[in-house]
Amino acid sequence: MPWEKKFEIEEAIDRAANVFWAKGYEATSLADLLKTMGINKGSFYNAFGSKKNLFIQSLLKYDREQRQDFIAQLDALENPLLAINVLFDKLIEQSVTDTERKGCFLINTALNLPNHDETTQKTVQNGLSDFESFFERQIQRGIHEGSIPETVNPHVTATGLLTLVVGLRVLARGAFDHNHLDAIKAQAIDLIT
Amino acid sequence: MPWEKKFEIEEAIDRAANVFWAKGYEATSLADLLKTMGINKGSFYNAFGSKKNLFIQSLLKYDREQRQDFIAQLDALENPLLAINVLFDKLIEQSVTDTERKGCFLINTALNLPNHDETTQKTVQNGLSDFESFFERQIQRGIHEGSIPETVNPHVTATGLLTLVVGLRVLARGAFDHNHLDAIKAQAIDLIT
Repeated sequence: MPWEKKFEIEEAIDRAANVFWAKGYEATSLADLLKTMGINKGSFYNAFGSKKNLFIQSLLKYDREQRQDFIAQLDALENPLLAINVLFDKLIEQSVTDTERKGCFLINTALNLPNHDETTQKTVQNGLSDFESFFERQIQRGIHEGSIPETVNPHVTATGLLTLVVGLRVLARGAFDHNHLDAIKAQAIDLIT
Repeated sequence: MPWEKKFEIEEAIDRAANVFWAKGYEATSLADLLKTMGINKGSFYNAFGSKKNLFIQSLLKYDREQRQDFIAQLDALENPLLAINVLFDKLIEQSVTDTERKGCFLINTALNLPNHDETTQKTVQNGLSDFESFFERQIQRGIHEGSIPETVNPHVTATGLLTLVVGLRVLARGAFDHNHLDAIKAQAIDLIT
């Protein structure tokens, strides 16, 4: 595949991801996708096979380029409390600056999980599980370094922090204002200090 | 309106609510609604006007009969720690016993809030805000009685507890198992003890 074509396909998947992310799988029509991707029906089916297949490719690309990269950057900070603070700061910043209030593509999909197929379910479960492992790893490191109290249970607290992230992402889609999102962060930090 | 007709309409709204709740607004077709409600298209438009109007009626009925009644029952316990414990126990029980894994109709709608109209947005915001007030009220009572430490900030902690409820409801739709849901409850109790 020449690089131009590869680039075009990557770009088209990004555009599709934005629509699936904002509207969800069901509410996204083929017409929406063709319009945002700037291609015709023939090219669409030739390149992606089906709407469902494109959805899975979009979600996997988002998970790889957004969530995994984000976690890698946070891990590189090598300061557990800072990493967890920065994580919540970034999520709040993203939430209040996104005029479309799209939230998180992975979490939006998690909410509707029973209506998705097995590949999508696995992608969401693995993504969230990896997110939870990030928290557990940071808490263990913090306890080891002495910046997080030994009374904090890494496994259970990691679940609590992930749940706060999920709740924050849902509530930031319109139910909660900036002050409320800051209160969620304060509660997250409270669980590890 | 004779009571038989009122009963039939209430019953029809309940049936519709179950479909909207499980599948979401967009993925619910008119055919789904007619089938579950056991009525024809003419009666449907005559009684409910539109799919959107029926959705709002369904959501309001759910909010009134499920959320508000639930909170009233918890308030009646008159023991703040017990009320919050029972709340999480009931949500976990509902989540693991619901074979459709529908979650919470209000929270499912909150996730997709930018794509709903103003009436729906207000219903969700008021419902969640009322839920948050329940937590704040219980924490204040607990501090007053001495069962919750004075160091707990009622307002901020109420936001944290509501966020954990929202996260729990999303994650219980397939991403998390029973043990994980229990861990969320443990974290909630940790915030107030």
